[in-house]
Amino acid sequence: MESAIDEHLKCPRTRHRRVEDDYVPPYPVWSARAPVAVRQVVMGYFGVQSRGAEMQGRACAALMKIAQDFALPDGPGHHDLTHYVDAQGFDNMIAIAYWSDPAAYARWCATPAVDAWWRSDERLTEGLGYFREIASPRVEHFETMFNTPDRFEGVGVVMGGVSGELQEHGYWGSMRDRIPLSQTDAMAPSGSRAVIAGAPAPGQRVRIAGHENVAMIRSGQEWTDTTGQERTLYLQDMEPVLREGMDFLRDQGLGIGCYSNRYMRHLDAQGAPLQKSFGLSYWRSLADMERWAESHPTHVAIFGSFMRYVQALNFQLQLRVYHEVSVLKADEQSYEYINCHAGSGLMNGLAPSA
Amino acid sequence: MESAIDEHLKCPRTRHRRVEDDYVPPYPVWSARAPVAVRQVVMGYFGVQSRGAEMQGRACAALMKIAQDFALPDGPGHHDLTHYVDAQGFDNMIAIAYWSDPAAYARWCATPAVDAWWRSDERLTEGLGYFREIASPRVEHFETMFNTPDRFEGVGVVMGGVSGELQEHGYWGSMRDRIPLSQTDAMAPSGSRAVIAGAPAPGQRVRIAGHENVAMIRSGQEWTDTTGQERTLYLQDMEPVLREGMDFLRDQGLGIGCYSNRYMRHLDAQGAPLQKSFGLSYWRSLADMERWAESHPTHVAIFGSFMRYVQALNFQLQLRVYHEVSVLKADEQSYEYINCHAGSGLMNGLAPSA
Repeated sequence: MESAIDEHLKCPRTRHRRVEDDYVPPYPVWSARAPVAVRQVVMGYFGVQSRGAEMQGRACAALMKIAQDFALPDGPGHHDLTHYVDAQGFDNMIAIAYWSDPAAYARWCATPAVDAWWRSDERLTEGLGYFREIASPRVEHFETMFNTPDRFEGVGVVMGGVSGELQEHGYWGSMRDRIPLSQTDAMAPSGSRAVIAGAPAPGQRVRIAGHENVAMIRSGQEWTDTTGQERTLYLQDMEPVLREGMDFLRDQGLGIGCYSNRYMRHLDAQGAPLQKSFGLSYWRSLADMERWAESHPTHVAIFGSFMRYVQALNFQLQLRVYHEVSVLKADEQSYEYINCHAGSGLMNGLAPSA
Repeated sequence: MESAIDEHLKCPRTRHRRVEDDYVPPYPVWSARAPVAVRQVVMGYFGVQSRGAEMQGRACAALMKIAQDFALPDGPGHHDLTHYVDAQGFDNMIAIAYWSDPAAYARWCATPAVDAWWRSDERLTEGLGYFREIASPRVEHFETMFNTPDRFEGVGVVMGGVSGELQEHGYWGSMRDRIPLSQTDAMAPSGSRAVIAGAPAPGQRVRIAGHENVAMIRSGQEWTDTTGQERTLYLQDMEPVLREGMDFLRDQGLGIGCYSNRYMRHLDAQGAPLQKSFGLSYWRSLADMERWAESHPTHVAIFGSFMRYVQALNFQLQLRVYHEVSVLKADEQSYEYINCHAGSGLMNGLAPSA
């Protein structure tokens, strides 16, 4: 068993973990490990927003264009295609791409074919919305967790390695304890989001600045391999409660520090849904996320039913679960919304009428 | 809003709380407050153990004798009469008494009528078991919490005062954060329980020494004033889950660090059950208690259903809940078992056959 904090990221502590050194977690989980040379990663969410079935074809074509650009030099090491319908009834398809080298991302992003397309005023008048939410946490600022040591998702895929079984999990607060920065920093937020270009509304190109220590989580599950009782447990017992929690965050999250929540489904390259989903949310702080997770009835119920679930199945799960959590410095965030509705992503709650 | 840690018990921290200074709990709770002159309290559990209906009368008479002695000079400021049936099928009636002055307790305990009765060899041959479990935490070593600022229970009654609304509650880890010692100490356990007189078996007078930082909790609820939906919610939804958790700790607690658990019902002076109950348990450490509370499906379910419950009732509860939690130094514990079965209280698991 080892710490979630990789050897080269350990430092003298000024803050304690929530558990003692003899703590033994109830079941195994793993983290992705990156080579020491990896100092920062990039998580790019490239979205297309549309409304109604008649726009679906154009939106899909735009998503394909974005995904094709990933094949250009310095493109991402991994990407997913995903979809959800937001609270305003818009379809949002997002190509999520990961780089283990921010310089490569910067070069890719500056590729004329990519850069010109995103900067073009045509994007404002095609009847579609587009957005880029780019998080680029340094390795001290994020953690990953998987309940299997293989077939990683998300940033784990581009990190390239896997830890041994982790000690810091299975207790509230373990998420924080897995982030290297928690050794010395409470990761308290400061400042506030700001509209730094445009105005949150359709027809606008809007840039949002994130403040210090915005927390971001992608927390997912894949039920492809589940069968019988386990599949029933997931689909009939856990998923409805999970959805209830996701809906709460989407609709009422702002009041508790959740800027944006999307409950997304993976798509295959043809746009058909896969048996994989995840919640993607941005928070004012890791503490706000912790407080919700620990006290909101839906999340407590999710946690309780998961603990029951893994014990009922004697820890032999076919359900795959994982998450990646980042606490982002202001300079690790970049948000751009092009012809999107005012409730989109990090704009949520920033329009004057909101 | 104020800290659970009373002003005169605050000290420069070497360890952080789990929440930031701007944390706002979801509903109000209060702590009992004692005058500055109170430096240590005594929680005395005086038990009578019997088996079968035919011994019930004698057991009740013994309990009454114990309770009558509380009226002697230097007796406790408050006491409860309680009952439960243990895993071995024995009835256990316990008179629980509280002193806010350990010197008064010592004088009371040394009163010839009290001292001689407990020391008499007759106690070994009456067909009943007797026990004394005495916890005497210094004020830095325990905390209390009540969901109403009136009608306190347990040690709160003898402390005499009440705090304002507390900040440290409603999150996992708040129990630890309410204990003054947590400002500077992880409260890790050391040493182990030891049989220091007799041998755990009927017919024996057994003394058990507790080790450093044994954690003890009395966590109770009163449903007397509940009506309608709330009463149904408690009795049909919460109580069965609570009982399931209590049974788990009683029967399988040792494996996770729970030395003893009793799910007890209050009795009135005539021995009739009141609508008040509590769990009383002793643990190897506060961390072990935390781990169980946070991960065992029954307790997570209790917590989740309580959060749902208070929100469904818009925080207007008639259900009264409270707890008192102590982390006991070795010198703050004294355990004596007289003609009790080997699974009783802190003897649990210490008999050679166990």
